[in-house]
Amino acid sequence: MRRSLRTASEPSGQARHGADMRITRRDFFSSSIVGGPVALAGVAAVEVGQRHRPIPLPEPMRLWDLATPALVVDVDQLDSNLRTMHQFYADRRASLRPHAKTHKCPVIARQQLDLGAIGIAVTKISEAEVMVEGGVGPLLITSPIATRGKLARLLALARQAPSLQIVTDRLQNVRDLNDGARAVGIRLQVIIDLNTGDDRTGIALGESAVTLADAVARAESLELVGVQAYAGRLQHVVGWEARRHQYSETMGRVMETVASMRQAGLNLPVVTGGGTGTYDINSEVDGMTDTQVGSYVFMDDNYREVGGRSGQVFDDFEPSLFVLATAISQPVEGRITVDAGYKAFATDKEPPRLRDIRGVTYQFGGDEHGILELTDPSEPITVGDKVRLTIPHCDPTVNLYDHLHAVRGEDVLEVWPIAGRGRSQ
Amino acid sequence: MRRSLRTASEPSGQARHGADMRITRRDFFSSSIVGGPVALAGVAAVEVGQRHRPIPLPEPMRLWDLATPALVVDVDQLDSNLRTMHQFYADRRASLRPHAKTHKCPVIARQQLDLGAIGIAVTKISEAEVMVEGGVGPLLITSPIATRGKLARLLALARQAPSLQIVTDRLQNVRDLNDGARAVGIRLQVIIDLNTGDDRTGIALGESAVTLADAVARAESLELVGVQAYAGRLQHVVGWEARRHQYSETMGRVMETVASMRQAGLNLPVVTGGGTGTYDINSEVDGMTDTQVGSYVFMDDNYREVGGRSGQVFDDFEPSLFVLATAISQPVEGRITVDAGYKAFATDKEPPRLRDIRGVTYQFGGDEHGILELTDPSEPITVGDKVRLTIPHCDPTVNLYDHLHAVRGEDVLEVWPIAGRGRSQ
Repeated sequence: MRRSLRTASEPSGQARHGADMRITRRDFFSSSIVGGPVALAGVAAVEVGQRHRPIPLPEPMRLWDLATPALVVDVDQLDSNLRTMHQFYADRRASLRPHAKTHKCPVIARQQLDLGAIGIAVTKISEAEVMVEGGVGPLLITSPIATRGKLARLLALARQAPSLQIVTDRLQNVRDLNDGARAVGIRLQVIIDLNTGDDRTGIALGESAVTLADAVARAESLELVGVQAYAGRLQHVVGWEARRHQYSETMGRVMETVASMRQAGLNLPVVTGGGTGTYDINSEVDGMTDTQVGSYVFMDDNYREVGGRSGQVFDDFEPSLFVLATAISQPVEGRITVDAGYKAFATDKEPPRLRDIRGVTYQFGGDEHGILELTDPSEPITVGDKVRLTIPHCDPTVNLYDHLHAVRGEDVLEVWPIAGRGRSQ
Repeated sequence: MRRSLRTASEPSGQARHGADMRITRRDFFSSSIVGGPVALAGVAAVEVGQRHRPIPLPEPMRLWDLATPALVVDVDQLDSNLRTMHQFYADRRASLRPHAKTHKCPVIARQQLDLGAIGIAVTKISEAEVMVEGGVGPLLITSPIATRGKLARLLALARQAPSLQIVTDRLQNVRDLNDGARAVGIRLQVIIDLNTGDDRTGIALGESAVTLADAVARAESLELVGVQAYAGRLQHVVGWEARRHQYSETMGRVMETVASMRQAGLNLPVVTGGGTGTYDINSEVDGMTDTQVGSYVFMDDNYREVGGRSGQVFDDFEPSLFVLATAISQPVEGRITVDAGYKAFATDKEPPRLRDIRGVTYQFGGDEHGILELTDPSEPITVGDKVRLTIPHCDPTVNLYDHLHAVRGEDVLEVWPIAGRGRSQ
């Protein structure tokens, strides 16, 4: 009787296969224990797909019935964000390649693809594995890999999903990718990761990048697909004009390197980069073929503060994500404790705010609690009440939860597994 | 062939029960989707227990083979911490009631019980559900609940585990607990949560606390077990003498309230409180019956800095936990990028440090990356290398990972499921 629930939330198809208790080394290394899914062989697609699809509710349920802290997405606001972005790109030369590092949720990735995205970006191999498992693609892995273990997983995945693309930023890595691809008999699609000034990953612009691209083009088991020019630090430059200025300048230098590559005879169909903060700037950069927007699906307090084209708040997209918390104690007058703390929110940015009630501030009260200071509350809050809290930074907050509760207004519609949660490997 | 791996890491016993796809409302509300485990009826204990036991390795494995970022515990250091604490308490009047909010790992909870702990503390209902499922107990839930949904889950759990204890800090909550306990035909064990000055949860010291305790004692379906006097803010007072001074003063006031309760004829076998920062102070407080130590199992940078009895570093326990990360890129001279960022560490405290190499600092490089500045490295670090990083704050960092890799030196011994990860409900 409970079977459907279990199989909907866990990839338990494996459990029915005989009683052989032996674990091989290969099984182990391809398992979720070390960061990837258990190997897929022998499991019907429909079973594997079950943690990548919405989980229906047994009967109507209200937002206020959710066990808290709960991560909740307003589907109308999400849908509005998706449509706004895709409509904006409908008549642009550049395309959309949304980044799944934000939502880690195959359900949303499929919505993005259905609206016309040319593919989905992911950061790590384990995230790619989850998306392939859920039938999401084509995929671009936007961070380079550097070990034999990850290479083995990449190659296994590329055999399953031949459209898989990976970035590289080192000559030795090109040799390793080529040797590996040849060994397993595939042609691997590779994108040159450029250091646009973030100094995080990527090869320096100019001659060394041209040399690297040339090495990929010459490698018999690799296919040079293009370049990635992601400028993370510029997504959050405050003020749209300042952001556009800095971004355009940076991409101008990127395009000089791209021109040098083309002068060297290299074919580069893809020039990918950009993010939510530059979605309407990257789209205008001459030569950019697609934009890796992530946060626009949910937005967060941090992104709203960078300002938009039309004002001090970047409000082109709606804050569709929130955490529902419960007031569990009132230790002193004017103060209410809620059940959501460090384990419910990413803490790399400012603390969350109340979404519906003014005159109340939230501060962290440790791992499990938040403290509401009721300075001049626009609505009373008493113990037992549930409150909606904003998301300071969406990506690492989503990464704390196993499920996203999809609501319309105050009605819970479905539960969406965050299948990529914790997949940072 | 892969069955054993899957059943070892997922509670998939349910999957074998027929093909009835119907989800009842009751199933749904007791399910992991809303924060609790799928109801246990009909699943053999041995199957349910599988995600609460160590997962053996197929063959010997080295630390350096782990897919990164990986959360790793040095079992010798963990064992040393466990033994140091339990030996310290061996001849004290107070007992140990370790708090599982730190490790969320039934494997470690059982080690604590095996060494003589009188019980295990947990913060939330969902954490308690995981521990009961894993056969861990007796349990004390140290944070009050405030909704009917949580009450229903509490009562269901108390029927399964009659030794379960819960705190309360409000008269209305006492009525609700009593009504619920009577309705399901149990006698629920209740502890009065006192506000020691944290102003987070707990009833004010003095008369109102006595009234509340009296209400519990008079409630026919409740059993008054004692009081909880947790002082979170005092665990991290820098300097052992200052900590002892402030803690003793606070506990003096707590004991006045306890004395008033006893003068009112109330029986209070339990007075619980304290934490790792006051483990050797709480043990000396006259009237304290047990100490809720959590972080001592792993320690973290933050705790080390509060100072110990014998010096500026609180080094009574060893830092047994670390994150293994891989150097994946060298964008510029003197800088190396690793694959562990906001999604690999809690960020509410200072950034992590390198465990083995001096002259290198870590700074966050976004959700997925960390930046190592190689000022004057005591050992070279090149792309492909793996490095061990310290834990700034253990509890919320553990909460990011599904598995804890247990190592001895450089050998991986087992993988321990962090069964309570994400269970903040």
